[in-house]
Formats: sequence, structure tokens, C-alpha cells
Amino acid sequence: MEKVNHLILPADLSRPSNTIADLGELALIEKLKPFCAAGAIGDDAAIMKAQPQHKLVVTTDMLTENVHFSGRTTPPYTVGWRAVAANLADIAAMGAMPIGITVGLGLPGHTPLNWVEELYRGMADCLNIHGGAIVGGDLCRAMQRTVSITALGEVLPHQVIRRDRASPVMTVDQTGPHGASSAGLALLLEELELKEQQPSGTLSYAKAWIKAHQMPVPRFDALKDLRRVIQKDKGAIYPTITGMDSSDGLANALLQISNSSRVGMNIVRSAIPLPAGLSAAVGPETALKWALHGGEDFELVLCLPAKIAEAFTKTRFATAIGTTTDTGIVKLLSAEGSSSSTTITHESYQHF
Amino acid sequence: MEKVNHLILPADLSRPSNTIADLGELALIEKLKPFCAAGAIGDDAAIMKAQPQHKLVVTTDMLTENVHFSGRTTPPYTVGWRAVAANLADIAAMGAMPIGITVGLGLPGHTPLNWVEELYRGMADCLNIHGGAIVGGDLCRAMQRTVSITALGEVLPHQVIRRDRASPVMTVDQTGPHGASSAGLALLLEELELKEQQPSGTLSYAKAWIKAHQMPVPRFDALKDLRRVIQKDKGAIYPTITGMDSSDGLANALLQISNSSRVGMNIVRSAIPLPAGLSAAVGPETALKWALHGGEDFELVLCLPAKIAEAFTKTRFATAIGTTTDTGIVKLLSAEGSSSSTTITHESYQHF
Repeated sequence: MEKVNHLILPADLSRPSNTIADLGELALIEKLKPFCAAGAIGDDAAIMKAQPQHKLVVTTDMLTENVHFSGRTTPPYTVGWRAVAANLADIAAMGAMPIGITVGLGLPGHTPLNWVEELYRGMADCLNIHGGAIVGGDLCRAMQRTVSITALGEVLPHQVIRRDRASPVMTVDQTGPHGASSAGLALLLEELELKEQQPSGTLSYAKAWIKAHQMPVPRFDALKDLRRVIQKDKGAIYPTITGMDSSDGLANALLQISNSSRVGMNIVRSAIPLPAGLSAAVGPETALKWALHGGEDFELVLCLPAKIAEAFTKTRFATAIGTTTDTGIVKLLSAEGSSSSTTITHESYQHF
Repeated sequence: MEKVNHLILPADLSRPSNTIADLGELALIEKLKPFCAAGAIGDDAAIMKAQPQHKLVVTTDMLTENVHFSGRTTPPYTVGWRAVAANLADIAAMGAMPIGITVGLGLPGHTPLNWVEELYRGMADCLNIHGGAIVGGDLCRAMQRTVSITALGEVLPHQVIRRDRASPVMTVDQTGPHGASSAGLALLLEELELKEQQPSGTLSYAKAWIKAHQMPVPRFDALKDLRRVIQKDKGAIYPTITGMDSSDGLANALLQISNSSRVGMNIVRSAIPLPAGLSAAVGPETALKWALHGGEDFELVLCLPAKIAEAFTKTRFATAIGTTTDTGIVKLLSAEGSSSSTTITHESYQHF
């Protein structure tokens, strides 16, 4: 028992007012104001304005402790960053740019103030870098730390990206490599251990995988490059872009687009980029499995007209991994033009 | 043990698929789709459009079981209705009209499917009557039933109602009577019992108080009447309206407006309307206490130019209860012009 006491007691005793119950709700709100947009707090609701002619994009995500995050894998700063990034990735997946978020926060009274401040710092930093601000929120008592974010974005109608507009034969493009978030999570959960005899450089890759899990990047950078590529083609009609984000895995995104658009796909296994060092560390089968089914990479998966795709894949973001077909089936070909293929199927996570 | 078995087992055995864990997340989403706006589900985010020239209003509220609602006081239909009404009341308090909501829902796996369907039915009914639709959402596993709603509204810039625009000497108007929600809650919690010797008619009043607690009405009806009253005064500049909703009690609303606007108020005790039958049932002191500090009536508290107030109080909604002053203090006068007064202070609820 002494070891446990030694670990837990000093922090509680040395800081007598370190929980939100000690502080009280009103004082907590004062502490969180600096992380929010100026004037965001103090009325019944926040006032915002989308740019003229723009449509509004709205998405919401609720995260709960020990389901979506835990002290073991995500310090509070990264809980905040990830929660915002996951929402912004949905905004990006609609072709939109972010304008703001609201935060519903459920907390047990014994939550350390520091945990809440770090959460808000992580959220504010992600917004500062990627766009938008905290415009409103609500705090309430809960048995379990719960973060519910609603993100708002704006988009010109012709730039909206939906899932159901793909047709044969378009190029299937993806940003990122996929699988790094799963590798990072496996390291944090100690399900993956890197041994001394790992290929050189693996440890620095490992840091990148952990960062990919803890601080994913919503792909507004890639979206802006895509717009630039399209707009270079002056005079042409803005093409219909189909796509979604890969929050539930690359395979899930391919299948959702296939299902919504009623197209098949031929995906070329060797064309799927993997995180640097991952195949060497865990073997190519596991690396591919994580890329397809791991999820939480929050990249973009897009179906583009061939000409646009060609220019887009020359940017630093995108890789062409296949084409849409009229078969209705999402096939994984071992190499381009190969006749040997398997079918990609769902391995999705259900909450209940 | 037999008694416990008798109480718990039959329900579980007779309906083998009555929890959301039995059903699974994807099937649950299918069950909830009919309550949502057409096409709302199936992309990364919802697309909406505010009317041209309008500003966007955003508010969020998180409710947790046994803090904000319980099986004892609020059947699931009314949990849904109340959660939406509370958010819409914030939209109304900004002078805005509702356009839609998103719903973040945290649920334990053992939650009955019927509970979730009733929740959504309550939300959808409140939206159908008062405006807006469910445009998006997220389901996740949680230890405690948690409902996080973000509501969006729209308002022309000159019609925005803020808390900090009041000046001396304006009329303080309120909709509703206040206190009915507290009376309803007290009845539901059996803290208030109506005896046989109650004045006649009390039982029908009691039903109205319970309804006030379970199914509050966001005051878009009063807001529309206020606009009509203002617009009748043709050619005049649209006046600045100050106000907020009374979700934390009438006294809290008066004090918040006083504090934000840096004005005092003289509120006339005898002018404060009380719910029909309440004074007779619980005595005038308790009735006034509930009106001032009970909360959750979700009415509007407004500071209006005298001429507008005069016309507005002729509608079915509003009562003038006092005037703003330059004293900085919110006084409760026993009668108009009385020199005897007390000061209204906060008795607010803190979550932590």
C-alpha cells in the first residue's frame, strides 16, 4: 500500500484546491474564458456569421472517458486536441472551412482543475492552428468525463463534398498514410513493444505514430491544395468531388462511398501508402490491416476526375490508390491490373 | 433474492431484444432516422443554410441523468422535449428563430430501446411545434444517460437581443408567470402534497404545474408578438431590446441583466404574476420564492422602451413588473412607489 500512497497522496495534499468541486462552477468558467472567443460567454447563445453565399456545415461528436480516451493513452491536452481535430476532420470532409465550435463538458466533481485547463488548452491550440474558435459551451456534473463538441463550418455550394456522387471511372485518392494512429495506440497500450533489435530509426517513427494518435491533423491543408489544383484549370466547371474522412478506417471510407454512390472500386494493395517504418516493425500484413481497419487517422478519401487526381497527387498530400468501377464491389488487387483480388469488407466498431 | 428476481427478470426475459446493446449501434441509428430531418444522416456533417443577411445563433446544453432528469420526474418523452425546449429558449432569448439541432447522446448499453425512441419522439415533437429539425448527432457508450444538444438559430442583426443594452428608465417585462416548473417538480418529487382540503380547482392547477416542468414552452410566440408590436410603429427605428431567458429563475435573469447592463431595477412585488392557484396551495411566500428562484420556467425577461412595453403587455404574454433605474441595485418593492424594499440577490445553483 505504501507505494500507492506515495504515488497518489502528495498531489492531493499539496494542492488543497485542485478539483473543480473545490473551485465551484462560476470560478471554473472564469478560468476557461481565456481559451474562448472574445465575448463568446455572457449571453444566452453565441452570435456568428457565415460568409455570404456560403452554406453552413454542422457536425457533432461525443467522447467519453475509458471509451474514447483514457489517462493511459491521452493526456488531457491531447484529449482536447483530438476531440476538436475529429470534429474538424468532418468539416474538412464536407469540403468546408471551420468557423467555430461549442463544447459540452460533463465532469465528476473530483476532476482536477488542471485536467480541465489542459483540455481547453489542447482544444484552443488545435483551433488556432486549423481555424475556428470556442464560441460557446456548457458545463455539467457527470459520473464520467464527457466531451461533446459541435463544430460549424462554411462552404460554397459548388464546393460541397458528399459521399454519394462518385461514378465509374474516377481516381480514388487518399491523403496521409493510414495506420499510424493504430500503431501509436498499440504502443501506448503496450500491446506493441519495440525491441532493441528493431530496424534503426524505428524509435523515431514510433514517436510519430504516437503523435498521429494523440494529435491528428484535420486535412484543411490538403483541401486547400485540392481547390488550388481545381482552380488552376481556369474556365472549367468546378467538378463534383466525392469523399469522406477516414475516421473509421480507410476500408470503411471506401465502403461507405461505394455504398452511397453505388459504385465498385479496384484498390491496388501495393499503392496504399503505409506509415514509414511500420511494415518493418510489425510486418506488412499487420501494417496493411491497421491502414485499412485501424481508424482514427482522420485523413480524406476522395474520388476525383482523373485529370484533377493527377495534379492533386503531385501535391505533398495525396496518393492515388485505385479507381471506381461499375461492379459494385470494393476489390483489393495485389497489383495494378492483377487478376488476383480479395474483397474489402467492414470490420467496424460498434459502440453498443 | 426471490423478490429481486421477480422484479427484474421477467422484463429481461420476455423482451429479449429490448436494450440498445441487444440491438447494436447501426440498427439503433436506423430506428432513430425517422425522427431526423430527411437526408440529415449519411454524410460526415449536415448542410444547412441561414437566410441571407441573418446572423447565426448557437447554443449548447448538456443534461445528465440524476442531475437534470430522472425516471422519477421525467419520462423519456419529456426528457427529449425539455432538452430541446431549454436550448430553443436560449435561441428565443437572443431574439432568433430556430433552424435546427444536433444531438450527442451518451448511453449505457442496458438502456431500453424504447427509452431512446421516446426521447427522440419528444425532441422531434418539440421541434415540429416550435421550429427546427434534428440535423445531426452522435451516439456513444457512457456510464450515465447524457443528452448534449446544440441548437442553431438565425436572426437579423438589428433584432438581436443581448443582456447588456438596458439603460434607465425602461420597463421590465416578463412572459409567463414564473414558479410553475418548481411547483411541478415538487409535486413529482412528492415534496409537495395536495390534500383533500385544498381550495377547489387545485388539482387541475397541479396538472398544469407538472406540465410546466416536463414540457416547457420556448417563447417564440411571445417573440413574434413583440416583433409585431414593434413593426406596427411604422417608420420608427427598431429599438434595442435587452433580455435573456429565465432558465435559472426570474431573479437570476434580473440580476444578470442588471450586472451586464450596469443598471438597477425597481421590481414591484405585487406586479409579479404567479401561477394560478399556487399562492392558495403553498402560501404567497413560497409561491414568490419559487417565482424568483425556482428556475426552469424558460420564459423571457426583457427591458423595453416604455411605449413598446405598453403595447407588448396588451398581448397575451407579457406583464410589466418594474423599471430599470440608475442605482445599480435590483430592489423588490412591496408595491409601486413604496419606500419599503428588499434587495434581490442570487440563490443560484452551482453544478460543482
